[in-house]
Amino acid sequence: MFNSKVKLVDNMQFIATADSGHAVVMDGPPNVGGNNTGSKPSELLLMAFGGCSGMDVISILRKKKQDVTGLEMNVSGDTSGGHPRSFEKMHIEYIVTGRNISDDAVKSSIELSLGKYCLVGATIGKSAEITHSYKIVQESGQ
Amino acid sequence: MFNSKVKLVDNMQFIATADSGHAVVMDGPPNVGGNNTGSKPSELLLMAFGGCSGMDVISILRKKKQDVTGLEMNVSGDTSGGHPRSFEKMHIEYIVTGRNISDDAVKSSIELSLGKYCLVGATIGKSAEITHSYKIVQESGQ
Repeated sequence: MFNSKVKLVDNMQFIATADSGHAVVMDGPPNVGGNNTGSKPSELLLMAFGGCSGMDVISILRKKKQDVTGLEMNVSGDTSGGHPRSFEKMHIEYIVTGRNISDDAVKSSIELSLGKYCLVGATIGKSAEITHSYKIVQESGQ
Repeated sequence: MFNSKVKLVDNMQFIATADSGHAVVMDGPPNVGGNNTGSKPSELLLMAFGGCSGMDVISILRKKKQDVTGLEMNVSGDTSGGHPRSFEKMHIEYIVTGRNISDDAVKSSIELSLGKYCLVGATIGKSAEITHSYKIVQESGQ
């Protein structure tokens, strides 16, 4: 069981906490009456997906003894036009930087995350078609 | 189109940013190799849902001229046991505090959010059965 508490602070600003104890500020832009003091809820959904899959991928690459020096995910999402509007398409691009990184290791770590481990991705994946791509940036030198 | 960038900082710590420009730190607990310096991605998903629906509900209650002095959402989620594990059940409890708050206004604002407006809820709702409840705390005095 996962738990979160979200509390109105002022205007459209909310502060959320969860079991791990960390707080996140959410707000809306001025055109919906907010003051843009924090992340939009829809943005948090994309961040959650990127973080969830990123944690899987870095863990698997380390287990595979890959010399990773950087990992970035770019997550984009498209919504349907109607009501209720939901995410219909999501794309996640992984950029893995390191030395002598194996293409197979990257490919299989992403497939394991998206196909098996990532709770957020599996949840969103019932609504949105999730596609992915990756780039490997090989660093030279010792 | 919504966009987010998630970048590995150190160990299992990631920092995410999105179009609105605000950053969120994510990390894992020590049992998955993290240092618990930020929210877990699965927690962000619940926070996003609570914030998304909370923004709808407060907007609608204000339009209905309700004298709301506080709003809180408690969001809990249960996952399936198998792989890929996804959220199968989610419950959101709304606690509306104010003066002379109309039960009908609260009920209809929640139904409009969950049935029509909340992008995060509509996305998660394709995976998880979403249930809701609410409490109204009437404040006395002027």
